[in-house]
Amino acid sequence: MALSIEDMAVFCKKKGFVYPSAEIYGGIAGFFDYGPLGVELKKNLEDQLWKRFVRSRCDVVGIDGSIITNPKVWQASGHVDCFEDIMLECTKCHHRFRGDHMIEDKLNINAEGISKEDVDKLIKENSIKCPDCKSELGKANQFNLMFDTNVGPVGENTAYLRPETAQLIFTNFRLVQENARMKLPFGIAQTGKAFRNEISPRDFLFRVREFEQFEIEFFIHPKKTDDCPMINDVEAMEINILLENDKDHKKAKIKDLLSKKILSQWHAYWLGQFYKFFLDMGINPANLRIRQHVKDELAHYARACFDIEYNFPFGWKEIHGNADRQSFDLEQHAKHSKKDLSFFDEESKEKVTPSVIEPSQGIGRAMLAFMFDAYEDDKKRGNIVLKLSPKLAPVKLGIFPLVGNKEEVTKLAMKIYNGLKDDFACQYDKSGSVGRRYARADEAGIPYCITIDFDTLEDDSVTIRDRDTTKQERIKIAELREKIINLL
Amino acid sequence: MALSIEDMAVFCKKKGFVYPSAEIYGGIAGFFDYGPLGVELKKNLEDQLWKRFVRSRCDVVGIDGSIITNPKVWQASGHVDCFEDIMLECTKCHHRFRGDHMIEDKLNINAEGISKEDVDKLIKENSIKCPDCKSELGKANQFNLMFDTNVGPVGENTAYLRPETAQLIFTNFRLVQENARMKLPFGIAQTGKAFRNEISPRDFLFRVREFEQFEIEFFIHPKKTDDCPMINDVEAMEINILLENDKDHKKAKIKDLLSKKILSQWHAYWLGQFYKFFLDMGINPANLRIRQHVKDELAHYARACFDIEYNFPFGWKEIHGNADRQSFDLEQHAKHSKKDLSFFDEESKEKVTPSVIEPSQGIGRAMLAFMFDAYEDDKKRGNIVLKLSPKLAPVKLGIFPLVGNKEEVTKLAMKIYNGLKDDFACQYDKSGSVGRRYARADEAGIPYCITIDFDTLEDDSVTIRDRDTTKQERIKIAELREKIINLL
Repeated sequence: MALSIEDMAVFCKKKGFVYPSAEIYGGIAGFFDYGPLGVELKKNLEDQLWKRFVRSRCDVVGIDGSIITNPKVWQASGHVDCFEDIMLECTKCHHRFRGDHMIEDKLNINAEGISKEDVDKLIKENSIKCPDCKSELGKANQFNLMFDTNVGPVGENTAYLRPETAQLIFTNFRLVQENARMKLPFGIAQTGKAFRNEISPRDFLFRVREFEQFEIEFFIHPKKTDDCPMINDVEAMEINILLENDKDHKKAKIKDLLSKKILSQWHAYWLGQFYKFFLDMGINPANLRIRQHVKDELAHYARACFDIEYNFPFGWKEIHGNADRQSFDLEQHAKHSKKDLSFFDEESKEKVTPSVIEPSQGIGRAMLAFMFDAYEDDKKRGNIVLKLSPKLAPVKLGIFPLVGNKEEVTKLAMKIYNGLKDDFACQYDKSGSVGRRYARADEAGIPYCITIDFDTLEDDSVTIRDRDTTKQERIKIAELREKIINLL
Repeated sequence: MALSIEDMAVFCKKKGFVYPSAEIYGGIAGFFDYGPLGVELKKNLEDQLWKRFVRSRCDVVGIDGSIITNPKVWQASGHVDCFEDIMLECTKCHHRFRGDHMIEDKLNINAEGISKEDVDKLIKENSIKCPDCKSELGKANQFNLMFDTNVGPVGENTAYLRPETAQLIFTNFRLVQENARMKLPFGIAQTGKAFRNEISPRDFLFRVREFEQFEIEFFIHPKKTDDCPMINDVEAMEINILLENDKDHKKAKIKDLLSKKILSQWHAYWLGQFYKFFLDMGINPANLRIRQHVKDELAHYARACFDIEYNFPFGWKEIHGNADRQSFDLEQHAKHSKKDLSFFDEESKEKVTPSVIEPSQGIGRAMLAFMFDAYEDDKKRGNIVLKLSPKLAPVKLGIFPLVGNKEEVTKLAMKIYNGLKDDFACQYDKSGSVGRRYARADEAGIPYCITIDFDTLEDDSVTIRDRDTTKQERIKIAELREKIINLL
């Protein structure tokens, strides 16, 4: 039986991955605190993204914009006027629901981008009632998802908590391009918090009100979106793809999508790069697919958009969005700020406003996918094994003195711990039987455990145990560091 | 002539460290965006803190709490009622000022913790006028510094943006202690954003409305605050200390402070650890001091509090706070949540509410201190040299093909770049004279530059140049990686 999202939330709380925020006060819907294991997993995920897509690339640089910025940014981007969901309220119990979700749940159809008129119509036609008290639902309303606040001591200066990190990249586009002396094509990346006042947060980390994003805006000469010199890095990749008019996903190669011209080369490149990221971090390929947005879902300025979806127990759901936004955002900001955001491309000798590919990665959703993919209830062992990639695992090494309170053994174990802890996240654990310690390590996703025993005092060797196979190997202390570097 | 804070802001913008947020829209007071160099410097600083004080220690674990949490947290902590500054408003131009700062600026006295009655009295006695238009100032008022917002679709659920990360640690204290099976003494650390609606943000990154903190709450058996087994790590450290009743700081050893009983052993340990952190990251010891809070400054629950101050061009200012908060916070949350936040200490067989030492580190302020300390206008070279510690430097290595467009040289340079970029933050730069490239690297704080020239094709050697001394050394490519590891 598949693990439910509720079971996962219980497991995450019990092991110290994720807690309801301020649980001692009853929590607050849509907000979570990351515990000791969760914070490390999240950091590792963010660091892997940053390392791969920013630090290791000469064509991408990072920024870190503020959460509260000049509110004109959100007028220009369209968020003040249009960043809305459709809200339904029960006429009796006054519980509130998202209109599109209600239609999807009750009628089992894709309702993304549905109008409030259509929601009202479908509610009436199908006699849909309040799921909580079975009373009539009121008329659908628009509800803006941005949190607002006041800046300064007066209370007249409304500002917003950013609903996405992306816009901070567009507003800084010219400064970054000049400072970092970037030439087209190049990208600007950002990791950080974003906030959306969801009508009904649900599914644990999946739909929350405060979350972390990693976004890249990749700027390309508008005539060269089909001119990606690195396209051969992804062309031969086999992916699962659900096309616009298909019912089920099928296997295909990225070059098949390109030959059908359903996306540009640069778009295919970035979509492939992130698909590959999930595979490299250990996701089972059978649980991953790309879904093409249907026409109704597409924002008017987007040329194409694809989600990377994960096969959660509650269905295939988006864990990554990848849009071709053309030059919409830069043009909007140029118009509203009255600043010239085009620039002179030396190669083509043209002044252009670049076209943009936007890979947008939710950190919490990705983490949830990694947790589900790694979770295994091993009946033989009698405990959960969290088979996280060593790259993501919160703790890399468990260090266990086998005889917990024999001074010579603990002293040596502590020496080994001290020699490793600055370079690898280690956990020293001396309490309980070694079996109990292995079980705890399995549940925390620790990939390798090192035990120090009486024999170690004689043969200068320790046992290293593999989480996934439970195989144990005896190895000389002098060779331990090299061994660990090769394993991790 | 000392570099002013305004000059530093200009330099930071020009080089891509820090920009006014959304500058194309005129910015927004008290909010900043970090550019490509700034984001890396900030990440390095946060990573160094996390590595040293969390991952490398078996007695500290991390969490990452949400920015918006249950508002009861801020009622319990006292922030809803008491987190206020005194505001003065000009009766004519309506500009607003912080009362304590006005008194400090005009009368040159320490006004921390001053009452609004005393502000009014001093304003009157000294005929202090509006600094902007010279008109009368109105009566002093209290102003709460928390930003508020509404959670959920109604607008009736006021919540706050956290004004500090600390309280999220206290609210999660029991869950973390249980999950991570911690025993006293132990600490919980957190890095993250905090928000304060400052009446008048000023001094660039120094007094801002959105900022990053790294905080540790270190929990100790209340009877064992003078029983720190690691005290000898800091006792012999020489520090600059400004004591409560002194006018100037003087040199002393931490053990001198302990023998005068002005702080507990554990408090001294953590104060010393952070003082050492700044020195290890390259701060000139002459620019660092510890200041003991005077009695009036102390919160009623604090047993003692010390700041670490840096000698900025605008005076000695706090870059780190270190408070002995006793068991105040846990007791407040136990009272308000009606949850038992004491726990059974196995060693003493007592049920206790732990006493707390709180090292509180502002990331932006620390970064500003590192920038000032590193900045050197080298007249001989004719450029700025940013002598940041290699541990903090945003880019570690510059890779320069000496003859920018000779294909054999650039090919080899690119090969060397590709071999290093995944392990060290590298910048490949082939444009302009090598002198110009060195100057650019100096201004970005790049500690080492590697040049590849025609001779390299013959002798398999490159030149490595030291930013601080400008000394150049010829080294075999085969030995380059080892050399770099030793240097960084």
